[in-house]
Amino acid sequence: MIKEIKISSRSRSQMIDITKMVQELVTESDVKNGTCFIFVPHTTAGITINENADPSVAADILKETDKIVPWEDGYKHIEGNSAAHIKASMMGLSQVVLVENGRLILGTWQGIYFCEFDGPRTRKVLVKILGD
Amino acid sequence: MIKEIKISSRSRSQMIDITKMVQELVTESDVKNGTCFIFVPHTTAGITINENADPSVAADILKETDKIVPWEDGYKHIEGNSAAHIKASMMGLSQVVLVENGRLILGTWQGIYFCEFDGPRTRKVLVKILGD
Amino acid sequence: MIKEIKISSRSRSQMIDITKMVQELVTESDVKNGTCFIFVPHTTAGITINENADPSVAADILKETDKIVPWEDGYKHIEGNSAAHIKASMMGLSQVVLVENGRLILGTWQGIYFCEFDGPRTRKVLVKILGD
Repeated sequence: MIKEIKISSRSRSQMIDITKMVQELVTESDVKNGTCFIFVPHTTAGITINENADPSVAADILKETDKIVPWEDGYKHIEGNSAAHIKASMMGLSQVVLVENGRLILGTWQGIYFCEFDGPRTRKVLVKILGD
Repeated sequence: MIKEIKISSRSRSQMIDITKMVQELVTESDVKNGTCFIFVPHTTAGITINENADPSVAADILKETDKIVPWEDGYKHIEGNSAAHIKASMMGLSQVVLVENGRLILGTWQGIYFCEFDGPRTRKVLVKILGD
Repeated sequence: MIKEIKISSRSRSQMIDITKMVQELVTESDVKNGTCFIFVPHTTAGITINENADPSVAADILKETDKIVPWEDGYKHIEGNSAAHIKASMMGLSQVVLVENGRLILGTWQGIYFCEFDGPRTRKVLVKILGD
């Protein structure tokens, strides 16, 4: 019932568009009308939905969240990646997308993005598709 | 199954209480116990749940998020509205609210807010209500 | 169908790990495969999922969000706790966690945290577990 998408990030911060991979899982599931739950089982990566037409938007999101939550800021966590943990909670760990006629219902400019905040790493995203 | 709420925002940043409109859809659906999924199919608007008693709270949320994510900050995205994209991801694109006895289960002071970050525009919110 | 977890926070800002309490409700529900919806019916508290191995991570999240959203910042809301309202919306009011074989499906280091931003207070978290 729960499916996995494997992701290999290539830099410390990276927005990876996984819309097509999630749509493939919806198509394979044969669910026509339902709900798609997407969950990130990591603590230094998040998931969001945002514009996938101009890649500058994803770049701006990464650059600005780096300003809001600086990588170094007197954190206590000895692993040194507290900024990544904080950004994961700010973006969120899960998304819910509706499914109609076998398609994810997204706005014209929307894509589903895995947000790597402490890469490069091998990651996974869990997907569950429930028919109504 | 998926219903739409139409929204016309009147300023660049605006919190619009849509609780009554969502409740009307729950009532029409005849679902007594279930789950209500609310989704924003835009990339420069979000959705959140917060206090609807004192309108100053919504005003403070908008003013403070403007400080956290300034409108101008050396963004690359040529459309010039990157701040709105970032704020949309910070607030989130969807909400899940439980339904019991035909009512949205919200706290005493909670209202559901559509968050316009790049208005004024004509917008929509998607709502799906699933019975248990 | 909707169950409650009671929480007593002890300071103004506090991350409280409620994973075990949520898991107990999943176990009691007898749902083997399903979806767990967790909702905070308050406007100055949120809920997130983050590392529960090193408690410094939770401390860093609280300290950094205090920097991002200062307690005093010229807010209009007369109750004086606008920062708590803003942080609640930033973290989010609900989480969705998948359930398989009667267990919450969380990553190795993930725990579910109730985020108190205006305590100490008596709080509650709503939990609904739906079998597939």
